[in-house]
Amino acid sequence: MLLDARPRTGEIARPTRLIEAMHYGALNGGKRLRPYLVLEAARLFGGDEDAALQVGCALECLHSYSLVHDDLPAMDDDDLRRGKPTVHIAYDYATAILAGDGLLTYAFDIIASPDTSLSDEARAALVLELARAAGIGGMAGGQALDLAAEREAPDEAGIVLLQSMKTGALLRFACEAGAIIAGRGHEDRARLRRFGEIIGRAFQLADDLLDVTADAATMGKATGKDAAKGKGTLVALKGQAWAEAELERLVTAAAQELAAYGAAATTLIETARFIAYRKN
Amino acid sequence: MLLDARPRTGEIARPTRLIEAMHYGALNGGKRLRPYLVLEAARLFGGDEDAALQVGCALECLHSYSLVHDDLPAMDDDDLRRGKPTVHIAYDYATAILAGDGLLTYAFDIIASPDTSLSDEARAALVLELARAAGIGGMAGGQALDLAAEREAPDEAGIVLLQSMKTGALLRFACEAGAIIAGRGHEDRARLRRFGEIIGRAFQLADDLLDVTADAATMGKATGKDAAKGKGTLVALKGQAWAEAELERLVTAAAQELAAYGAAATTLIETARFIAYRKN
Repeated sequence: MLLDARPRTGEIARPTRLIEAMHYGALNGGKRLRPYLVLEAARLFGGDEDAALQVGCALECLHSYSLVHDDLPAMDDDDLRRGKPTVHIAYDYATAILAGDGLLTYAFDIIASPDTSLSDEARAALVLELARAAGIGGMAGGQALDLAAEREAPDEAGIVLLQSMKTGALLRFACEAGAIIAGRGHEDRARLRRFGEIIGRAFQLADDLLDVTADAATMGKATGKDAAKGKGTLVALKGQAWAEAELERLVTAAAQELAAYGAAATTLIETARFIAYRKN
Repeated sequence: MLLDARPRTGEIARPTRLIEAMHYGALNGGKRLRPYLVLEAARLFGGDEDAALQVGCALECLHSYSLVHDDLPAMDDDDLRRGKPTVHIAYDYATAILAGDGLLTYAFDIIASPDTSLSDEARAALVLELARAAGIGGMAGGQALDLAAEREAPDEAGIVLLQSMKTGALLRFACEAGAIIAGRGHEDRARLRRFGEIIGRAFQLADDLLDVTADAATMGKATGKDAAKGKGTLVALKGQAWAEAELERLVTAAAQELAAYGAAATTLIETARFIAYRKN
């Protein structure tokens, strides 16, 4: 008898340590901003909430993978994340690499799973957009540019592009995903994508401001690291006052983008405000 | 104006080094066994060749990611792959991690891309099966068990499971993918999957034999590493003579599995023979 070797619960061996490390990396008390955005964007169009929750979970797995890998010694070398030891500290280097790989892969497993109301068309579209948001034209490419920025400081346009790829891409996806889940067409998808782009810029600007103004206890991670590494941020380049004014401008732009949806968009617009003015 | 930041050719910055490292990791003269299997399995059912080629490329990207990450210092710590420096040697540790991440992500981008004759249903099914083959229940889980095996040697059943996950899962997917591309139902998919399981076992057994009998120049990578690490293989456990007889048995079983398809299956059956009796 040849073995059908998909492991089942209780079988002779399971990669227990790997699964634990993935749990540790994903379920460690983050803000869950990205799944929240997927849910709220889907709600805006009356999209199915179970499907939105599933896509949100996938996105959080993918986001968690990026944190696990970015924290590795060869990358940003962080020992602390959300106030707790990072995965390679709590487990080991190899397990942290694999846990990131596993979370990234699992994100696509979750989205492609046929146990929601999502159509095959929506599933395929979500996979495509998520892969592009996470890949070389998005988050992974942005992280590569970020590593390069430690060797040669980018100019303003370079910083904007880098951040739009590294941080913005997943937030754009989160918002657009809501429209895809609800089966909306190009116009709504593009509008939600632009809203995601704006809040992505606000998110990063607020992050860069907090890196200057907040302390590690509030943030649950090391602060002042950008300056210590000589890493260019818009705050460093254009000053705190400019950054605060720019945040105001972005919050207004975000609200204008969703004005067409009337009162239904209130929660998303409040979320933009939260992102811009958060304290950690 | 807010920037739509998907990078385009010629834009202000591209993650050039990352993209080069991905090319280096993927286009380095491997056997291309997995895409070949996808193509031949699709041909068996008259499936679209362009679609099969696309899925084959995705699978090769995914396979390449696993090699890039497995070779990392924290994992198997290999300096040589297919006779050339591994990605972290040719580039650097961080770039190798990101190149693996990028290749894994790009695999799903390729499969979900709407520019083939594949239906949305086939695309979603391929994403799901690939994610499961690559994830904690497949390749990544198998690699975790492999790392654990260096600390505590598994028994025979443990070795079979580990190899079936680490190596077998992608080969099973390659064969089943051909049936999915051709729009075949459960029976053909299951049959091709069983064929993939058998050739996966043959592949691994041949690999373990070659690790004992071949030299590094022939293999293009270090040999004798299993024994040096005290890593349990079926060859070490049951001997060379048993392994050679088992390979015969597996080749026969592979041919029997596809007998129902008559002469159309000749190429796939020859491939099983090649896998079992290859010299590198």
